[in-house]
Amino acid sequence: MAGGFGSRFWPICRDENPKQFSNIMGGEESMLQTTFHRFERICPRENIIIVTHQRYVGKVREQIPDLDDYQVLSEPHRRNTAPCIAYAAAVIKNRCPDANIIVTPADHAIFHEAKFQNDINQALSITSQQPVIVTLGVPPTDPNTSYGYIQINDAENTFGHANMHKVITFTEKPPLEIAKQFIATGEFFWNAGIFVWSLPTLIKSFKKFLPTIYQSFLNGNNFTPTEEELSEIYAQTGSISVDVGIMEHATNVHVLQASFGWSDIESWESLYANAPKQGNQNCIISGQTFTYEVSNTLVNVPANKKVILQGLDGYIVAGTEDTILVCRRNQEDSIFKFSLDVSFEEQAKTENKK
Amino acid sequence: MAGGFGSRFWPICRDENPKQFSNIMGGEESMLQTTFHRFERICPRENIIIVTHQRYVGKVREQIPDLDDYQVLSEPHRRNTAPCIAYAAAVIKNRCPDANIIVTPADHAIFHEAKFQNDINQALSITSQQPVIVTLGVPPTDPNTSYGYIQINDAENTFGHANMHKVITFTEKPPLEIAKQFIATGEFFWNAGIFVWSLPTLIKSFKKFLPTIYQSFLNGNNFTPTEEELSEIYAQTGSISVDVGIMEHATNVHVLQASFGWSDIESWESLYANAPKQGNQNCIISGQTFTYEVSNTLVNVPANKKVILQGLDGYIVAGTEDTILVCRRNQEDSIFKFSLDVSFEEQAKTENKK
Repeated sequence: MAGGFGSRFWPICRDENPKQFSNIMGGEESMLQTTFHRFERICPRENIIIVTHQRYVGKVREQIPDLDDYQVLSEPHRRNTAPCIAYAAAVIKNRCPDANIIVTPADHAIFHEAKFQNDINQALSITSQQPVIVTLGVPPTDPNTSYGYIQINDAENTFGHANMHKVITFTEKPPLEIAKQFIATGEFFWNAGIFVWSLPTLIKSFKKFLPTIYQSFLNGNNFTPTEEELSEIYAQTGSISVDVGIMEHATNVHVLQASFGWSDIESWESLYANAPKQGNQNCIISGQTFTYEVSNTLVNVPANKKVILQGLDGYIVAGTEDTILVCRRNQEDSIFKFSLDVSFEEQAKTENKK
Repeated sequence: MAGGFGSRFWPICRDENPKQFSNIMGGEESMLQTTFHRFERICPRENIIIVTHQRYVGKVREQIPDLDDYQVLSEPHRRNTAPCIAYAAAVIKNRCPDANIIVTPADHAIFHEAKFQNDINQALSITSQQPVIVTLGVPPTDPNTSYGYIQINDAENTFGHANMHKVITFTEKPPLEIAKQFIATGEFFWNAGIFVWSLPTLIKSFKKFLPTIYQSFLNGNNFTPTEEELSEIYAQTGSISVDVGIMEHATNVHVLQASFGWSDIESWESLYANAPKQGNQNCIISGQTFTYEVSNTLVNVPANKKVILQGLDGYIVAGTEDTILVCRRNQEDSIFKFSLDVSFEEQAKTENKK
């Protein structure tokens, strides 16, 4: 799933360059490329299907060249994850009706690749034999209020796996007090949004809980719509996440406790928390940076840029070729407003030129 | 005089782009261009001679195109202002032995052009009739310790000009306490480094106070050295300023009180002090700048760059295409150290590549 728009990582990520296509964590690869290469080590390359919004198809093809046509699915409208997954499942159904499927976002950070591979293989071995949905649950490290929480039946393991339990409830983005209570019980995991299920289980789940989406994508035996037909389907289908549409209702969802270290890196603060620190708790992700009396500060500018900082404590310094943001870390919620101000000004300029 | 090296305005000004060739004050023109155009309104364009170091001849020709050969003098070595002025005077002597000469740095700020023109014309009218040196004295606004101070005979005017007095002493860069005492007396002006004198007066002054420089440049009647001869002259001549070499000793120096508003803009702090302020005492010289809870801050980045700042009080934000500096204004003395660190790193990289 690589269709997300915009991002809180302005000015590096924008609608024309959302997080999955950027290397917000540093390094040479975009998050999509890192995710793709991670799954190339789990399944054959030709089994990987990328679903994205039609405006990003070019970006996907540029970043992951030489994919077959069926591997890059273009969504004409944004409809959240359920239609996205149904679309990919329909294409898989054409090619391999008994497939085992891993659903994953393209823009999350995984910190231990080998452990990830091991957890995923365990999940696949269950779903290839059992009509269940396995979701990867991340042991929470703080009462984060922007994640979904999964409550497990702590009393017993399932399928003889020490780290697998039946799911009791899903809760999206709880208030802080609730999140704290969740964590205190020891019965809750963060929902990493990574689901493993067989195609037959997936189809049954859509048929039962999202019948109209099932009708649109999964009812027939050869899903090969024209561009126009696909546009029609997307225009009519509801916008709903697979979590809300299926996971919250299904009774066959099991959690495998993830051992691999995970973050969806959904904000500068989350990036700062998850990235390695240098002296004075600075986190220099990219850029030729010189710091003097600088602490608790995150720097992410293009690798060819020089940044000389003096006298900053707790700032974000983030830039692109033509833009730089210097902002207190605790003010990151204002960055969206800043981005609007800048694009408003850009728009005004463009209109003045006309 | 446009031969100065480097600058404290790093990273915008560097040895390869010193202050006189930059638009550190904003706007489209470099300080050299602004100075040149200022004097085009005072004398014919062909009467303007630019002396620079040989490494900057290309820059001068690029910024002021279509000059005759005699108008751009190339110094093979840095020898401070006295040899520089003698060189230009020798070239002027070839063309116009009774010339009236204005000596001026190319990188100072003049805030009222019309008043400047008026003051200069007054000075020229004196020196065309009297064998005296007129120096422009700026009424001091603070006990600046990086300027030269001129003490005047406050008791009487000279040449019937209300704003002209005889000079008693020159003092280069006094300590703060002395500077404060100077200002308190009301008898001191800042030395703007702008001198007006006739060529005969200039020649007599060099002959009397700097006889070896006189011998090298001004003794003959046709100063047309080959490149090699010039190099030899510069290799042998001493390095001395006209202030120390002549002004401190001459008894025919008069100050004309400048009315035009002046600064040599010798540091970021001086630029901040002299440039117009916007809200919250911010000084946005160049760059598309968006400020939130920002005050007392100076921004100077290329005009095509966007800078979004939050939560800064009293900073310098200065940049070029590939470098940005964020530094407390009261730490500007450290900028030279920063620039050394950066160039040391650049050098190390270049050597690693070899």
